[in-house]
Amino acid sequence: MQQIENYQKSFLKHLEGFTVHKEPNNLYQPINYILQLGGKRLRPVLTLMTAEVFGETLDNALDAALSIEVFHNFSLVHDDIMDDAPLRRGKETVHEKWNLNTGILSGDAMLILAYQLFENYEPETFQALAQLFSKTALEVCEGQQYDIDFETRDDVTITQYLKMIEYKTAVLVGAAMKMGAIVAKASLEDQNSIYQFGRLLGIAFQLQDDYLDAFGNPETFGKQVGGDIIENKKTYLYLKTMELGTNEDEKEFLFLMQNNVLSNEDKVKSAKQFFEDTGAAKATQDAVKDYTNKAFKVLETLNISEDKKQVLRLFGEQLMTRRV
Amino acid sequence: MQQIENYQKSFLKHLEGFTVHKEPNNLYQPINYILQLGGKRLRPVLTLMTAEVFGETLDNALDAALSIEVFHNFSLVHDDIMDDAPLRRGKETVHEKWNLNTGILSGDAMLILAYQLFENYEPETFQALAQLFSKTALEVCEGQQYDIDFETRDDVTITQYLKMIEYKTAVLVGAAMKMGAIVAKASLEDQNSIYQFGRLLGIAFQLQDDYLDAFGNPETFGKQVGGDIIENKKTYLYLKTMELGTNEDEKEFLFLMQNNVLSNEDKVKSAKQFFEDTGAAKATQDAVKDYTNKAFKVLETLNISEDKKQVLRLFGEQLMTRRV
Repeated sequence: MQQIENYQKSFLKHLEGFTVHKEPNNLYQPINYILQLGGKRLRPVLTLMTAEVFGETLDNALDAALSIEVFHNFSLVHDDIMDDAPLRRGKETVHEKWNLNTGILSGDAMLILAYQLFENYEPETFQALAQLFSKTALEVCEGQQYDIDFETRDDVTITQYLKMIEYKTAVLVGAAMKMGAIVAKASLEDQNSIYQFGRLLGIAFQLQDDYLDAFGNPETFGKQVGGDIIENKKTYLYLKTMELGTNEDEKEFLFLMQNNVLSNEDKVKSAKQFFEDTGAAKATQDAVKDYTNKAFKVLETLNISEDKKQVLRLFGEQLMTRRV
Repeated sequence: MQQIENYQKSFLKHLEGFTVHKEPNNLYQPINYILQLGGKRLRPVLTLMTAEVFGETLDNALDAALSIEVFHNFSLVHDDIMDDAPLRRGKETVHEKWNLNTGILSGDAMLILAYQLFENYEPETFQALAQLFSKTALEVCEGQQYDIDFETRDDVTITQYLKMIEYKTAVLVGAAMKMGAIVAKASLEDQNSIYQFGRLLGIAFQLQDDYLDAFGNPETFGKQVGGDIIENKKTYLYLKTMELGTNEDEKEFLFLMQNNVLSNEDKVKSAKQFFEDTGAAKATQDAVKDYTNKAFKVLETLNISEDKKQVLRLFGEQLMTRRV
């Protein structure tokens, strides 16, 4: 879709202008580094697209879009420390390239810079953006904490897992779109609907991610296929297997997941067999479709023209039929 | 001064109401812990006092005061990680009591909560507070980065040191007072003057801290007297000794500071001798007086009654004649 590339291009130009040439270098250099590592820029594109859908110029939404992207990268920098991750998008993470303290402090500065990006908006818009931002940012922190907590828990329910991915991932997608609507001064009703659309699509997106991690095409999937299985991550596939399988399945599956002797290849192969045999694989695909359909239903309620609804619907369909 | 205790009391009552009873526990418990560790609550008291000085009720300034305190404690949590500090106010630091990840994530949440505390103010006040907050918070990060950078540098100038303590400590004192003035809808001129008053007093306060660290009364000074000397910290006394001493002094002083054989007691005693002989001790006291006098001059320009100026003057004098 040509349009998305245009949004990306406008965004990248704006991002370029944001490069921070300020002292002290050791604080700002890592910020420029992480922001220029690339990525699909999905969240800021959603802000720009939504602003246009609600009749605002793209230019007026650039700062809000940038704020979302700066916040997203703040969370990557701090999450990478917590996950002890050496690489991000194939390059060294900030705390690896510099050190722990730089990772913490540069991250802190990015969180503040994200708020500063609202300062060019008039007071009412500023307050609405900052308020949504704070609520969302806090939920992202809560989601990250749940994710950490779940690692050492054996009693995570599907409901709790869904809340975790909603907070850690989906609310930021919703907020990215709502910010576009706020800048465009859309009605509160439309603001809330587009937030729900983004939130539901965000959950579908994350469930799709869980599915593709096991069943994606190794040639087109960006990450190592089966990575979640190798790391024993409690994904939707994992939790559904535990829920749908017999007591015997459950025991065998847990035994497999805790097995340290099997090769990764064999472990992934066996786990996928469990996912299919118990119906967990199908249940995950059904959940993706279910959340996507819910999102599209919300779309119907928006007070915008049919061709604008079609833009958002196309975007959602593209996102959900992706194989990467 | 009775009044300060009253401000403290009102603040502590408001802080109590803020205790976060939200899930996930592992995120919010550390926040309640650090906020209840105590301290003089100097910064929020300044916000409340300034609001009253400019004719606002104390109640209306409580959220702004709390925001300053939450931010201050956020910076303590993250700084303690960076400094690898095991204790804060005689109790375990957050990353010691819990772990690194909890320290990072709870700190992040506190920075966001600090912004949320402005949400009860109307849009114009909200934007003014949040804008000042962002500018100040970013400067505090920059000050912390300079402080880290200085540890491994041998060429730090007095000017650079003053900029570091201004950013790391003084701007937050200025901002605490300006927030009181913003809430009270004082004129922009008065807002800026009270900011300068706080900023200058903050610098004087930090220089006084440097002085007392070496020359304070061990019986009344809260921290270990000579702690900065033992840690080879490049304080104002240190840098002034290097500036005012002869080449010979400079060599001998550096030799002393890098000496790992001497007992701490002997090292502190000898370093203090250098501070006195080179005139660095007197120069530090002069600088404290100088910044205090500058602050008092700014006070004269405020459009408030003489008895209100007197309240602020008394507070400044108390702060500067402290021996602890």
